[in-house]
Order: sequence, then structure tokens, then C-alpha cells
Amino acid sequence: MVISVIQPDDLRKVAWDVLVSVCVVLAVIIAPLTIALRLELTGPLLVADTVLNLVFFADILIHFNTGYVTRRRLVTDRALIRKQYLKGLFWADALATLPLFIPAGSTLVGLTRFARFARLARLFKIFVVFRNLNRLHQTTVSSNLVRLLIMVFWLLMTAHLIACGMIMAGGVPEGLPPGLRFLQAYYWTITTVATVGYGDIVPDHSNALQLVFTIVAQLIGVAMYGYVIGNISSVISNLDTSKTSFMEKLERINTFMKYREVPDKVIRRVNDYYFYLWDTRHGYDETSTVAELPRSIRLELLQAIHRDVIRAVPLFRDANPALLRDVMLNLESVAYVPGDEVIHRGDTGTEMYFISRGSVDVLAADEETVLATLTEGAFFGEIALLEETQRNATIRTRDYCDLYALNRAVFKEILARHPSFAATVREIALQRGRRG
Amino acid sequence: MVISVIQPDDLRKVAWDVLVSVCVVLAVIIAPLTIALRLELTGPLLVADTVLNLVFFADILIHFNTGYVTRRRLVTDRALIRKQYLKGLFWADALATLPLFIPAGSTLVGLTRFARFARLARLFKIFVVFRNLNRLHQTTVSSNLVRLLIMVFWLLMTAHLIACGMIMAGGVPEGLPPGLRFLQAYYWTITTVATVGYGDIVPDHSNALQLVFTIVAQLIGVAMYGYVIGNISSVISNLDTSKTSFMEKLERINTFMKYREVPDKVIRRVNDYYFYLWDTRHGYDETSTVAELPRSIRLELLQAIHRDVIRAVPLFRDANPALLRDVMLNLESVAYVPGDEVIHRGDTGTEMYFISRGSVDVLAADEETVLATLTEGAFFGEIALLEETQRNATIRTRDYCDLYALNRAVFKEILARHPSFAATVREIALQRGRRG
Amino acid sequence: MVISVIQPDDLRKVAWDVLVSVCVVLAVIIAPLTIALRLELTGPLLVADTVLNLVFFADILIHFNTGYVTRRRLVTDRALIRKQYLKGLFWADALATLPLFIPAGSTLVGLTRFARFARLARLFKIFVVFRNLNRLHQTTVSSNLVRLLIMVFWLLMTAHLIACGMIMAGGVPEGLPPGLRFLQAYYWTITTVATVGYGDIVPDHSNALQLVFTIVAQLIGVAMYGYVIGNISSVISNLDTSKTSFMEKLERINTFMKYREVPDKVIRRVNDYYFYLWDTRHGYDETSTVAELPRSIRLELLQAIHRDVIRAVPLFRDANPALLRDVMLNLESVAYVPGDEVIHRGDTGTEMYFISRGSVDVLAADEETVLATLTEGAFFGEIALLEETQRNATIRTRDYCDLYALNRAVFKEILARHPSFAATVREIALQRGRRG
Amino acid sequence: MVISVIQPDDLRKVAWDVLVSVCVVLAVIIAPLTIALRLELTGPLLVADTVLNLVFFADILIHFNTGYVTRRRLVTDRALIRKQYLKGLFWADALATLPLFIPAGSTLVGLTRFARFARLARLFKIFVVFRNLNRLHQTTVSSNLVRLLIMVFWLLMTAHLIACGMIMAGGVPEGLPPGLRFLQAYYWTITTVATVGYGDIVPDHSNALQLVFTIVAQLIGVAMYGYVIGNISSVISNLDTSKTSFMEKLERINTFMKYREVPDKVIRRVNDYYFYLWDTRHGYDETSTVAELPRSIRLELLQAIHRDVIRAVPLFRDANPALLRDVMLNLESVAYVPGDEVIHRGDTGTEMYFISRGSVDVLAADEETVLATLTEGAFFGEIALLEETQRNATIRTRDYCDLYALNRAVFKEILARHPSFAATVREIALQRGRRG
Repeated sequence: MVISVIQPDDLRKVAWDVLVSVCVVLAVIIAPLTIALRLELTGPLLVADTVLNLVFFADILIHFNTGYVTRRRLVTDRALIRKQYLKGLFWADALATLPLFIPAGSTLVGLTRFARFARLARLFKIFVVFRNLNRLHQTTVSSNLVRLLIMVFWLLMTAHLIACGMIMAGGVPEGLPPGLRFLQAYYWTITTVATVGYGDIVPDHSNALQLVFTIVAQLIGVAMYGYVIGNISSVISNLDTSKTSFMEKLERINTFMKYREVPDKVIRRVNDYYFYLWDTRHGYDETSTVAELPRSIRLELLQAIHRDVIRAVPLFRDANPALLRDVMLNLESVAYVPGDEVIHRGDTGTEMYFISRGSVDVLAADEETVLATLTEGAFFGEIALLEETQRNATIRTRDYCDLYALNRAVFKEILARHPSFAATVREIALQRGRRG
Repeated sequence: MVISVIQPDDLRKVAWDVLVSVCVVLAVIIAPLTIALRLELTGPLLVADTVLNLVFFADILIHFNTGYVTRRRLVTDRALIRKQYLKGLFWADALATLPLFIPAGSTLVGLTRFARFARLARLFKIFVVFRNLNRLHQTTVSSNLVRLLIMVFWLLMTAHLIACGMIMAGGVPEGLPPGLRFLQAYYWTITTVATVGYGDIVPDHSNALQLVFTIVAQLIGVAMYGYVIGNISSVISNLDTSKTSFMEKLERINTFMKYREVPDKVIRRVNDYYFYLWDTRHGYDETSTVAELPRSIRLELLQAIHRDVIRAVPLFRDANPALLRDVMLNLESVAYVPGDEVIHRGDTGTEMYFISRGSVDVLAADEETVLATLTEGAFFGEIALLEETQRNATIRTRDYCDLYALNRAVFKEILARHPSFAATVREIALQRGRRG
Repeated sequence: MVISVIQPDDLRKVAWDVLVSVCVVLAVIIAPLTIALRLELTGPLLVADTVLNLVFFADILIHFNTGYVTRRRLVTDRALIRKQYLKGLFWADALATLPLFIPAGSTLVGLTRFARFARLARLFKIFVVFRNLNRLHQTTVSSNLVRLLIMVFWLLMTAHLIACGMIMAGGVPEGLPPGLRFLQAYYWTITTVATVGYGDIVPDHSNALQLVFTIVAQLIGVAMYGYVIGNISSVISNLDTSKTSFMEKLERINTFMKYREVPDKVIRRVNDYYFYLWDTRHGYDETSTVAELPRSIRLELLQAIHRDVIRAVPLFRDANPALLRDVMLNLESVAYVPGDEVIHRGDTGTEMYFISRGSVDVLAADEETVLATLTEGAFFGEIALLEETQRNATIRTRDYCDLYALNRAVFKEILARHPSFAATVREIALQRGRRG
Repeated sequence: MVISVIQPDDLRKVAWDVLVSVCVVLAVIIAPLTIALRLELTGPLLVADTVLNLVFFADILIHFNTGYVTRRRLVTDRALIRKQYLKGLFWADALATLPLFIPAGSTLVGLTRFARFARLARLFKIFVVFRNLNRLHQTTVSSNLVRLLIMVFWLLMTAHLIACGMIMAGGVPEGLPPGLRFLQAYYWTITTVATVGYGDIVPDHSNALQLVFTIVAQLIGVAMYGYVIGNISSVISNLDTSKTSFMEKLERINTFMKYREVPDKVIRRVNDYYFYLWDTRHGYDETSTVAELPRSIRLELLQAIHRDVIRAVPLFRDANPALLRDVMLNLESVAYVPGDEVIHRGDTGTEMYFISRGSVDVLAADEETVLATLTEGAFFGEIALLEETQRNATIRTRDYCDLYALNRAVFKEILARHPSFAATVREIALQRGRRG
């Protein structure tokens, strides 16, 4: 095969697509303009026309040689490519090259009017822009901005067509330079479509065509207005989604606390907790967010997060990788505000904790004296997990803390699967005395 | 019974309903027009009037002979049909046939004015259109488009009535041909209702009737505008539902990864996974989607999907249908991106996998050498399910993969229920050596 | 106590509240009007003014003698009522009765202007209307309509105040009859606020007051427009909630089926199932809907529904009420479309079924011959629940069916709690032979 | 260090920020105004200009000495502060102080025009206002009002800039006093942007600049309109969130009850129940609301709520705190309407109840005679939990009740962990005879 099939995501192909899109937009602007203002196809306009003809023709050839992607797989078989193209955009593309065969020179043989209208066939090519913009909208993450830009683009194009139509309907005074005539028509269109309606340019009341055209333009204006407002509303509410669901949660707990006449101090702590969640993670619950991922990606993600925490724990230094994976898949994230009691002396323990962020105090029996302060990478509460005893010290946060909890049921299961590790844990626990 | 009861979904009946609807629309357009423009009921108008009379009368007769559906059951008992009709639309229908009894000839005996107004009774028939459009909206899947079309229809009808009202209130100059007068009135209505308000046609400031009429028209305009925008917003947000909830999921996981300072490589893989889900199934989770269906339909659906997968597995070739049903009801769909490790050498296995789409590599102990490549229809991981041992090979995806997982707990239950199948599985596992 | 405390929900009190609200609306309409148009307080206006004075004064007295409800409990203690009223609406009410002490006769002593403005104090009474409308909105189920009506009411009131303001600012030509002047001002207000803006009445460009007033009116217009559209959008999306969530479910399952290339026949059946759910219960799942209720109300509700079904089953005829309650609390609703196989010969049974609506066929071994047809009130599938055997017949629906399923685990638990009932079931099962 | 670092939440710093914001707003209003109206920088304007210069310069100095908060931690290291500021707002701040170096006196050396335009550099400082407003929006709970105020602020600022632009484009007649010229321009802007468009001031049709400027202003108007409506819609739907989800729940249960033909009496009771939930807790479920909190805060909250209830129960008077915590964490909130049967004679009991609000009757075997009435702080139903027996009395609510239920499974677990408490419970149960 002399020419190999072009990859659709080849950068040169993407650049070409951008070029074609620009040409289409130009064609869509120029074609109705030449008709409405009865411009002669000479000079720069003739050059532009010829360039557009060539670009559109080349685009068809290139299309027949470009692979396409279906369900994330690239198809490079020429027969399939041809089939796909012929039952799709080919016809719009072909129609758009029609002016090629009625060359500008046809003005010499009296085909002026027809040649001009034939250029309207290029409007079909707008589908290409439509498809490209759609693709852009689908693949970008910051889709809200893209969406608004696409919307503005379509509005301006539609207004352009309406303006050209108004000129053709005779709604703009003749005898002015073409540029000003078009500007006045565009001005009238925006004034109408934006429902401002100054009334300085109005249709001739005895001209049915102009009246009907104005009615249609106004209806299009209403639809465009609805479309603009619908889109902006939708973007605003998208921007707000996480904030809204967070505020609703907050309102719910506050309604509840107000109904139950909870003291102000507690209300303030609960709100503080929620605002901490909002500040640091937009109110999302980590554990459930991660739970949606399939096991292998979840593991990769958790390894990236927990590697440092786990490495800092002496306990896990010699553990084998399979055990570490088991532990990481089962850690649960919990957030605390300053002054919270993570562990209560005398309670029956059900969890051990790793400190991911922040610091905690180990308190003596008087619940006042600080015996020790543990910081990031430390762990506590493991003894009560080995035997079912009561916590023998209270642990209180000094700071906003992100802890990871390891539940007893899960912990036991893991120890059972890895007997050597169980021995290590027991040993270290004995060395540390009877804290936590 | 000479005439049998007509089925409501008989195609001829549906065609008749469409015809009646068209006639109603015509009647609603013509009736106020003749009054506002004081047209004589002669020539084509007289013919149209007579046809409408006959059609509406025939519709009442047909109604008494058409069954109706309540709670998905057809009622064909004439007594019930009569009862249902008499307590429903009959009265609107009957009123609409009133002009029949004040025939067009009444103009001869000086009843002109009354006869004209009596035609307004036909507006009641609009309920039929309302009901039919509603039915259309309820039963179509692409309800958004239908909804917008219905909205446009009501807007144009309302504008028509306002335009006729404006002519009657004397807001449009007399002495013009009736067509142009109506067009000007309609033009004024749209200009007002669309809130454009050029101000080229305004009410007479000393005419209280015209001022009040204009105020009412403007208020209707505001309501219509709100209705249009509300509908378009709602349609836009409906179109967006699945995309929005997908983007929110993505934002959530990305917020989390940013907060936890996850390395870029992992971030890219997680995003790639989500975009694969979006491209292939709009972000929906298959398992929970199917879980909503009742058992029998779920089974039918799963059989349609899994038949090929199951047939390709040698293991299930001789299994009895009851066993296959049990297996199919318990498969869980999981998606993987290229390079994921589905199974990790050394982990304790809890699932076996069927490949529905894509291909995976079986890796040697060095985690590099590819021992074998499995493709669609293959299965792996079954040994670890028979005995609780560790995985003896790592399986890594080559491609975007859709796998079906069969959980050990479920697997054991099924084997217990089908002892012959348990034997087959064990045998094949031995033949394959100790892979997977 | 001579006068007993009035109940707030006493019908006479409600009627009085309605009367007061009407008077307030009248006062709010009349007060600014008399000022703007400089009307003399004579004739009917004087009568109206006196009546308003008396009604507002009486309202204060009545208020001090009306109990109030807080957290669904009626408070009738006069001291508490006084306290509640004095820290609430009393001040607005008191201010509104101010004109009482500047009687209309004050015009004689040159207080005309002040007396007129004092009447504006009655605008404070609008809070009463606000509170009453709010209460109406809270307690009605069809709150969407009420909400729109309340919105229209506020809009018209606001427009009235703007119109009066415009007259005072001199924006309407003098020398016309007062009625027409007001109408023109109201016409200008609506034209402006509805953003129509004909431009036939505009502020004097050299009059700063009129310019500023117009700017403010336009901004109020924008806010009102936003408020109208926001409300209508919200109402439309409320009306749509259940339909939207249903359509989304449908889209999800159809996306899935398209991706998995499920045959058309199955697609049609699945859609048929969902439309049946929509037609009969708006797509809601009965079991989860009822699960939200507390036990006692749930029981009452389920008894109302299942009494007939349960009575029709011979099995339960002699069962004691406690057992029936246990059974009813544990039935699960399932819907089937025609042709579904509820039970499959050879499967291991896990549920028995009661037919609530529709009919099913019991099929012979050839899966064709109909052995029997069971209809509403019948039950089947109970044998497989007693012993863990396979189903010995296939049961296929003839019709759209609503069945209630009783799960084996639950069934066994109930039987254990009621040994006498267990015996009855076993006996009947033997009589019926080995069907189900 | 001579000057210590300023705390960002120091009240004096906050006051300074407010002052700076006000100065920025002044600068943004004055700068374009002086250019558009070609005002001389003399008198009060010169004073204002100098003050602004000084404030902006001081702000930069202060910025270099103010700590900042990142992830809820205060950074006070000067090097980090400098780095943070230099890569952020410093450049906008620096540009805004540019006019400082082109002093007002430059008018003497012919730099008038440049000096005037240089003042536009102050527009950059608007970022400060943007950031401050954003911070305000983030941290306030009543964010809806703040949001609307911020919106109005931006709209008025934008309109101000457009008005100044229109004056510069020559769209307002010259030769009027500057104040009136600006007012007319602002009037035109609002008329255009609010899409009212009276048409009393329109651009010169032969002036391309004015036409283009008007088109741009109208497009900005459409965008602003969309922004206003989008925001108002969003605020309205936020206000409505809890009501909407409540109404949907209500609609769901009512649809279900209508389909199942539930008697009116039951329908009324179910609705009464839901309205009670709405009145007292906006339809939220307490248990799930609290479940989202981490253990330590949940405990604090539950202690605040249940302390009184628990203290009122004789049973718990001598219990140790660890046990009380266990009990409190496991109580479940249930609401009842008057006449509900909380416990049914003969049922197998699974829960004991504490009365938090309301009162219940203990009924004799005839289900009529009231044996006793229990009120707030009482408990019942504990016997059936100790042994698996049937309830020996029916308990019916007199009133709207909030009860807390303690499930048997949980109850047993707690008793097992606290043997001394188990003995107390058994003892009290015996004393009370065989009630409940």
C-alpha cells in the first residue's frame, strides 16, 4: 500500500480538522453574505472561494484515508472506512464541494445567480463543525466553559443567517455601503433576538414578507433565549452540585439539632467538622468514593496514598507485599476535629488507627495529663484488637486529623491469613507496654 | 351485535383521531378569525364549516362504539363505554357540535352575529387535542422532542387567539385587506409576547379596553416566556442527567486524588478507566442496572448476553440449563483498562473470571514473561476457588477488558447444588496444571 | 373566664382571617392610590377607610384571644399568647391601625397631606397576608398551583406600587381622568416590568428623578422576571420528577442492552415491563416505598391492601391475627409481563407466590400443555419451600401480573414461630399433589 | 523580628480588607467616569485619587506581612508568604498602584490623556474584591442571600462600565451637565441590558462604532440575564430541596395507595404521619442523618440529646458511662401519630422503647381499658427482649410521639458486655410484673 491509513488522533490530522472547521465557518459566513449583498465574486473573494473549494475537495480525499475509532478500537481497513464514510458525512461533504463544479467563471456565461446560490450548498459542511465541536465537548473535562463557547458560536452563526435574510427581505435601506448595510442588519437581528427591540428599525407594515420574516426571527429569538438561559442555568447548577449537596447535608443535621435542642457548643463542633470536610475534600466521603473503582485500580491508588503511612509504621516494615495489599484495601478514612476523643478509656475497642495527618494526645487516667503525643505515621489502639479488652487510655486529637481505621473483624481475618505477621504485632504490642 | 366495538389501537381509529385533531385545530383557527375579521360564511369557508360539523358529529358516534383501556386492560362492554364517555369528554364534544344546529343558513334570518359566536363553542373540542398530545407525550421514548413540539403548538395557538382579540379590540387599523390585518395583529402579538416590543404598533392611550387588553397580553407573554424557558431548561437538564452524574463522580474522585497528592500516573489511569466506562456504557454500572429487573426478565436478558460467553467455555458445554441459569444470574460485570493486574500472584483468590471482551496475559514468576494470552470466551482463576490457595500466576490485561466475575461464595453454593458439575470443573482444572 | 380562647383552626376564625386578608389587600391598593392621584377621602372612599380601620382594630383584639399551635400542640394560656403576639406581628398590626387615630376628619384642620401618608402605615399589615399565604403554601398538597397563584399576587401588588410611584414622579401626563391616568401608569409598569418596552411612554430625559425611578423599575422587572422564570422552572421540574427518574432508568437499561447487543425481542420485553410499571405505579418500587413507614402504620396499610388476598387463600383462613401480620409485613411485591416464567421447572425454589392481579398458567413437562390456570387470590410454589426440592412445574404468566412473593428464609422463620400453621400448610400441600 | 506577622483572621486585618474593597469599588467607579466625561483631576477628585493611591500602596506592604491559611493551617514564615504573594495577586496589586507614579500633577506637562487612562490600571484591583466576595460566599451558611447580593453588585458594576463606554462612543448627546449625561447613559444601559429597549435612545445608524458597541452591550445583556435567571432559579431550587424531596416521597406513597385502592382512613393516617415528620424535622430521618458523623462527634451529639431521657429511666441511674455510651449509640428514632399501636399484644417482641416526647396508653386484654399512661422518660417493652416471649399488652399512642427503640440483637450484645447491668434490668422487670 503506497499511502498508509492516517491515524485519527495524529496531530497533523487534528490540525487539518481545525483548518477545515475554520474554512467551513468562513464559507458559512461568506456564502449567504455574497447572496444578500449581491457581491461580485472577484478579487479577494474569488481567491477565498477557490481556496475553500480546494480545501473541501482535499478533505474528502483525506477522509477516505483516515481510520476511525469505534468502541475504543481503531479501524484501519480501507473497505470498512469507505463503508463508514459513505453512509455518514460523505453526502454533506460532497454537496459542499458542488460550487467546485460551477466555477466562479460561470458569471461570464450568465449563471451568476445560480452560481451564487450554489454556494449555499456549503452550509451542509456545517455538520463537520457540529461533529468536531461535539467531540470537543465530550472529551474535555472542563466541559462547562467549552459548552458556553459552543453556545455563543451557534448563536452568532444563527444571527448571521437571520441578518442576511433580513437584507434579502429588503428590511434594510438600500444605497448604503455594503459593510454598513450588513452591520445595520446584524444590529437589527441582535436587537430583535435579544428581545431588546428598540423599534428604530421595523418591518414595513404593508410588506407581508418582512412581517412574516420578523415573526420568525422573533420566535427564533425566544428559542435562542430559552437555550441560552437553559444552558447557563444548567452550568450554574453543575458548578454547584457538590456545594448544594453539602449544604443540604448541613441543613439536615442543623434542622435535627435545632429540633432536639442540642446545646450551642455541640452545634458548633458538628458544623466545624462539616466545614473541615468541605475545605479539605468538598464534603465527599473517601471510602465510598474509592469503593466504586475495580480492585486493581483501587489497589494502585491506595498504594500511592498509603505507601508513606505504611512505611512509617515499624510493624509493617518486614511484612510481605500481599499482606500490605490486604491491609491497604481495608483501611477506612475518618476525619476528626480538634478535641475529639478517638478512643475512650474503658470502652471495648473495635478498631486500630493510623495517623495520616494531624496529631493526637495519649491521656493519663485523670483525662488531663498528656502522657505522649503521636503524630503522622504513628499508630495506636492495636492491643484491644488482639484481645477483647477495654481501652486503657483515652486518645484525644490536638489538631484536625485524618486517621485511617482498621476494623477488628478485618484485622483478625488478615492476621489469620498471615501468621508470621500476627507474631510481629503481638511482640511489638508487648514492648510498648499497655498503652492504647 | 351488528357493529362490533372498535379497538382503540386499531390503526384506522388512530388515523381518525389524527383527522379529528387536525379538524379541531382548523376549527380553533377559523372560528375566532371569522368573528374578529367579520368574514361571511360563504364559499370555501362554508364548505370547511360543514365538513367540520360532520366530522365532529361522526366523532361522537364513533366514541360511543370504541373500547377503552384502563390499567392495561381493554374494556369492550358498551354500557361501561357509554358511562365512561358520558362522565368525561362527551360534554365538550357535544358543545363543539352546537354550530351544527345553527346552520350557516341562519345568516338569512338575521342570526349572523349569534351564529358566528356559536362557532366559538368549538374551542371546547381543543380538549381532544390536549388529550391526544398528552397521550403522545406519555408513550414516546424520545419525549423531549415531542414535548418541545407540543409547547410550540400551544404557543402558536395562544398567540392566534391573542391576535384575534387585538383585532376585535380595534388595535389594528381598519381598511386593510383582512389577510394583512390579521398578519399585522399576529406580528404585534408575537412582538409583544416575545417581549421584543418594537413599539411600532401600540394601544391607543385613551382607549381603556386596548390598554387592559395589552396588559393582559403582556402578562400572558411573561407566563409563556417562563413556560418556554422552564421547558427548555428542563429538556437541557434531562439530556444532561447521565453526563452530569458521571462528571460529578469524576470530580469527586479527582478532588480526592488531588487532596491525597496521588501521583499523576495513577490519576491518569483512574481517569482513563472512567472515560472507558463513559464511552462504552455512559458510566452506568451494569450489575445494579440489571438488578432492578424481576428474576424472569433478568434471566431472559442475561441469557441473551451470556449465551455466547458461556458456550465458548468448554466447562459449561455439558452443563444442564438450570445450572447455567444459576451461573448467569450470579456473574458480575467488571471493566479493566490496559495494564491492570486482574489477579496478583500470591494473593488469596476469591473470584474466577470469564473474558467477555478484550484479552489478558498470563505472566511468569518474573512478572515479565508472557506465558499465554487469553481472549474472549476464555476463563481463568478457577483453581483458587476450588481450594483456598494463593494465586500462582499474575494475570494482566493487554487491552480494555470487560470481564465477568464469579464470586467464590456463590460458586461454592452452585457447585453444592450441582455435584456433577463440580466434578467436571475439578477435572479440567487438573488438566490445565496449576495456572490461574 | 368570660370569653374562652379561640381555636386557631375554628372555621369562624379562618373566615375572619380571610376577611382580614381581603381588607389588607384593599388597603394596600387604596392607600398609595389616594396619595398618587391626590384623591379626597370622601364618599365611598371614606366608608371603606372607616371599615378598614375597624376591622384592623378588631383583629388586634381577636389576636390577643386566639391560641396558637407550636410543634403540633395547641397553646391556650393567655399569658403565653400575649407574649408570643407581642414579640411577633403585634407591632405591624399596631402600626397599621395608626390611621384610626388620624381620622379622616383631620382634613378639616389642614392635616390632609399627613393623613394621606399615614395611611401608608397600613402597608405593614401586608405581613399578615404574607404569613397567611405562606401557611396556605405549607399545608396544601397541590402546592404547585398555590405557589404560582401566590407569585402572580405578589407580582400584581408590586406592579401596583410601581405604577403609583410613576404617577407621583410625574411620568404620566396630567389633566386626564384619574382612572385613565392610573391605567396608563399600570400599562407603563407592566410594559416595563415584562421587559416589552414599547417606548410609547418614556421618562423625561432631563428629569433625573424619573430616570432613576425608571432604572429602579427596570431592575425590579429583571428580578421579578427571574423570580417568575425560576418559579415556573421549578414547578415544571417538580411535575417531572417521577417521569424524569423513570426515563433515566429506562435510558440506562437501554444503553446497557445496546452496548451488549441484546436481541430486539428481549429489548421490547424489558421496555414493556418498565412501561407497565410506569402505567400502574409511576415506576415506583412498592416494597421500598412502604419500607419507609414505621411498623404500626405500615401494618395498617398492608392490612388494607392484603386483607382480600389473604382471605382468598384457604391456607390462611384459620390462622391467628399475629401470624397474618407477620406474613403481611414480609410479602414482597413483584410485577410480571405476559409470557414471563415466574417459576422454572427444575430450578431450586426459594419463594412462594400469591396472585394479587392477573393470571398464570401451570405448564406440563413439555412446557406447552396448560395443566391449570390460576387467578387472583390463588397461590403457588409452596412445596419447594417446605422441603428443598426442585420446582416440578413451570408457571408462566398469561397477563400483566402483580404477585406477592414470600421468601423461603422468612417463610421458615414464620412457620417456626407458629407451629400449628406449619401443620396446615403441609397438609394442604399434600392434598394438592405435587404441583408448584 | 520587629513587626510580627499579621494573622489573616485578626479583626483589624478584616476591617482593613473591607476598607480596601470599598476603595477598589470607588476606584472602579471613578476611573472610567473621569475618562468618559473628561473630568479634571482637581478638588475632591484629586483628594480621592491620592487617598486611593496611598491605600493601595499600603495594602501591598501589609500583604507582605500577613500570614495565610492553607488546608486549615496558618503559615507565618515570611519567605513562604512572599513566595505565595508574588505568584498570586501581587501583580494585579502592583499594576493598580501604577497611577501613583504618574501623579495628578502630570497634567501640567501635557500627560493628561495618558494619566487618565493609566487610572484604568486600577481595574485590576477588582480581583481583590472578587476574592473577598468569594471568600464571603464560601464561609457563610446563609449563602443564598450573599450570592444574590454579590450578583447584584457585579451587574451594577458591569452596567457602569457599559454606560461609560457608551458616553465615550458618543451615544449620549453632549452639552449637558456631566451628571445628567452619565445618568442618561446609565439609563440607556439598564434599558438595554434589561432587554426593555424603549428605543428613545438608539445608536446613530451611520456610526459603525456605536452600532458595534450596542450589539456588544446587548449580548452582554443576554449573558447577564441568563446569569441572573440561572442564579435565581438555582437559589429557588436550593430553598426547595428538602420540600421537593419530601413532596416526592409523599407523591410516591399516595400513588401507591391509590393504585392499591387503600381506604381513605388509612390514606389520611399515612399523610398525617408524613406531615408530622415535615413539621417537626423537615422530613429527614434522624438515624441516617446522625450516622454520617464520626463516632466521637456522634457520641457528643447523642449525649446532648439523650442525657435527659436516659437520666429519667431508673434502670440507667447506676449504669457506668461506657454502658450508657453503648446504649446511646444504638438507639433508633421512630415517630408515631396518635392512635398507633407501638406494641401489639401477642406479637413476638423485638424492641424496647424509650419515650422522648408524647405519651402512650397501656391497654388491657379488651384493647379498650387503659391500664396506665406512660409519658416522657418512661420505657416499655423490655421483658420480651430478655426472653423470647409474646407481648402481653398492647401499647397505643395518645399523642404525636417520638420514641427511641433499642433493638433486641443490639440489646443482647450490650447486656453481654455489661453483666452487672443485665442483672439490674432483670430485677426491675420482675418488680413491674408482666407488663409491656
